[in-house]
Amino acid sequence: MTGPRFTPLIDSLPATVPFVGPETQERARGRPFAARLGANENVFGPSPLALAAMRDAAAEVWMYGDPESHDLRHALARHHGVDAGNIMVGEGIDGLLGYLVRLVVGPGDPVVTSDGAYPTFNFHVAGHGGVLHKVPYRGDREDPEALARRAREAGAKLVYFANPDNPMGSWHEAADVRRLIEAVPEGCLLALDEAYVEFAPEGTAPKLDPSDPRVVRLRTFSKAYGMAGARVGYAIGHAGLIGAFDKIRNHFGMCRMSQAGALAALSDHAHLAATRDNVAAARAEIARIARANGLAPLPSATNFVTIDAGGDGALARRLVSELAGRGIFVRMPFVAPHDRCIRVSCGRPGDLALLAAALPDALAAARR
Amino acid sequence: MTGPRFTPLIDSLPATVPFVGPETQERARGRPFAARLGANENVFGPSPLALAAMRDAAAEVWMYGDPESHDLRHALARHHGVDAGNIMVGEGIDGLLGYLVRLVVGPGDPVVTSDGAYPTFNFHVAGHGGVLHKVPYRGDREDPEALARRAREAGAKLVYFANPDNPMGSWHEAADVRRLIEAVPEGCLLALDEAYVEFAPEGTAPKLDPSDPRVVRLRTFSKAYGMAGARVGYAIGHAGLIGAFDKIRNHFGMCRMSQAGALAALSDHAHLAATRDNVAAARAEIARIARANGLAPLPSATNFVTIDAGGDGALARRLVSELAGRGIFVRMPFVAPHDRCIRVSCGRPGDLALLAAALPDALAAARR
Repeated sequence: MTGPRFTPLIDSLPATVPFVGPETQERARGRPFAARLGANENVFGPSPLALAAMRDAAAEVWMYGDPESHDLRHALARHHGVDAGNIMVGEGIDGLLGYLVRLVVGPGDPVVTSDGAYPTFNFHVAGHGGVLHKVPYRGDREDPEALARRAREAGAKLVYFANPDNPMGSWHEAADVRRLIEAVPEGCLLALDEAYVEFAPEGTAPKLDPSDPRVVRLRTFSKAYGMAGARVGYAIGHAGLIGAFDKIRNHFGMCRMSQAGALAALSDHAHLAATRDNVAAARAEIARIARANGLAPLPSATNFVTIDAGGDGALARRLVSELAGRGIFVRMPFVAPHDRCIRVSCGRPGDLALLAAALPDALAAARR
Repeated sequence: MTGPRFTPLIDSLPATVPFVGPETQERARGRPFAARLGANENVFGPSPLALAAMRDAAAEVWMYGDPESHDLRHALARHHGVDAGNIMVGEGIDGLLGYLVRLVVGPGDPVVTSDGAYPTFNFHVAGHGGVLHKVPYRGDREDPEALARRAREAGAKLVYFANPDNPMGSWHEAADVRRLIEAVPEGCLLALDEAYVEFAPEGTAPKLDPSDPRVVRLRTFSKAYGMAGARVGYAIGHAGLIGAFDKIRNHFGMCRMSQAGALAALSDHAHLAATRDNVAAARAEIARIARANGLAPLPSATNFVTIDAGGDGALARRLVSELAGRGIFVRMPFVAPHDRCIRVSCGRPGDLALLAAALPDALAAARR
C-alpha cells in the first residue's frame, strides 16, 4: 500500500514556508503579541465603507463570488484609466504571482530577481522548476541596471522588481523604472510589484501603459487599503497576458465579502488619504524611536521602516527575538549585508509606545 | 516589442472557463434572476454563529489570516477524529483540487474520471498537462468498477470520484467506495470529492482512515454550511500527502473572515440539522413540481435535483434557456446521455414557487 506518486519536481522541493505567521509564534510563546508590527499589515484598517460592505456581504455568502470580479475589475479599470480587459483580480499578489510564474516559467527556465527580495516570488519560481538568478542590491536599493543585465545574460523569461521595495522600504523614481522596462530583453516579462506604491511619493509609479506587453504591474488591497486578511490583489497589464490567467486560475477563488469590501474601499479617497497621513506619522515616530536608541532608520516609501541595528545579522536576529520576548512582533527578513537591519511596520501611537518602551532593554539584551 | 513567452503547455491550453457564473448571465440579460437555483449554492445560508463571526472578523481584516489555519484545522481534526496533520484547509475544493493535481500530475500523466463529472477537475488536469481518461456513467451513477479498471489499464496517477455525485445527485454506499479504494492500483491516488456528503443518507461516507495513503477526501463549507462565497474547503488524508501541499500552496491565501466563519459554522450542529431538513423538503418539492409537469426527478443525496426533461440535449438546453428568460437560473451541466436532464438546486419555498409558476410555460416553449 504505497502513497501517491508525486511529480519529480514536487519530490525535489523542500517543505518550506515563505513566512512563519505571527499566530504560529504566538502559539509557540503561549500568549499574543502586544504590538503586531512585523507583517507590514496596515493596522489603521479598512475604510468604514469597506467594513460595512463586507458585513453586508456576509449575508450573501451563500452565493459564490462573481468569478469575473466584474464590478471590482471595472471599478479598478476606471480608477486607473485602463480597460477592464487589462485588469485581473486574484487572491492577493501572492496568488497572482503564483499564476504569473506558472504562465511563463517551466522547468529550467531562467528568472531574475534581487538577492533578498520577496521570498514568496522565489517560492513560486522554485515551485514551477524555474532557475533563479539573483543580483545584489546596490546600496539599500534594488539595482535595475544589474537586473536588466542579468536578464539579458541569462535569457530570462521573467524579472521581478518591487517598487517601493520590501524589505528595504527603498524606492526608485518612475524614470528609473521606465528605463528598466526598456532595458529588459525581448520576450522577457517584467513583474513590477507595486504593493506599497500608494505610500510612495508622487512620481514613483511610471504612467500605466497597458499596451506595453513587457511589464505587468501588481497592486493590492492588503497594504494602503488595510485589507490583508481579505486577499484581494490585482494585475494590470496587456490584454493578452491578462487573458491568459483565465487558462489556469481558480475562477471561483475570490471571497465574495472581499470583493464587496475592495469595491467599497476603492471609492473612499478620504480614508486612503487619512491612512497615508497616519502611516507617514508612524514612519516618523519609528524613526524617532530608532534614533533615540542610537539606531539608524532608513528612508521609507512604504508602511514600514527598516532600521539598521548597528551590528551584524546575529545581533539583528537577537534583537528581533528580544523584542518578541517583550511582546513586540517585528521581523528580520533580510539577507546579508542587509541582515544588519530589522523591519518595523507602522503602528498606532499605542503600538509604537510599546515599541519605544521595549526597545532599550531589548537592545541591551541583544548586545549582551 | 513582443509579449511574454508563455510555457508550451500554457500556449496549448484553450481560454476556457469551467462555469459561466450567474452574474455573467445576469449582465447579459440586463436584470437579475428572480430565483438562483443553478449553482448548487445553499440559499438557507450559514449559521447565525458563522455570520456573527465573519462580521466580527471584518474588524480584524487588516491582519493576514493565519497561514496554518491552525484553529480551524484543529477543530476539523476533532470533528473528524483525526490528527490536525491529516487536514489541509484551502480556498474551496476547487483550490485544493488545483494543488492536488499539481502535486501528482505532470505533462502526459494519465488521470481517470467519469465522462460528465466535475469540469473543474478536468480544467486542472488539462492545466498541468495531464491526459484524461474518461469512463461512462453506469445508468445514472458513476461506475467505480470501471474507474478502477481504467486506472489499472492507463497506469493512472490520480482518479476522481465524487460521492454523492455532481451533476447527477446520485450516490454509492460506503461499501462500494471502500471497494473502489481497494481496487485502485498501487501508486494511484483516489480523490474522493465529498462536497455534498452532509446531505447524503447515513452510510454514504466510508469511515475515515487517514493512515491510508491511497485516498484523499475533499470536503467543503460551500454546500451544507452555506458559505460558498467564503471559499473554505479542506482535504483529509495521509500526513505525507497533506504535508506536501505546503510545498506549493498559497500559504497566505485564506480569507481571515472566512476562517473565522468556518470555525463558528462547524460548532453549530443545530443549524446543520435544520439545513438538512430544509434541503430535504426542497428536494421533495422540486420532485413534486417536476412530476406535476410530467417530468421525472432523479433520486438525490445532494442539495439539488436532477430532472429528466424527457427529450434530448437540445430540449434540455432550450428548457434551461426558457427558464432563464423567465428569471429562473438552473443549469444543464451534463454530457450525453444525461444531457436530457436539467439540474435544479434547492431553494426556499418562495424560490420554488417561482419555479413552479414558470415551468409549465417554459416547458411548452422549449417543446415548440
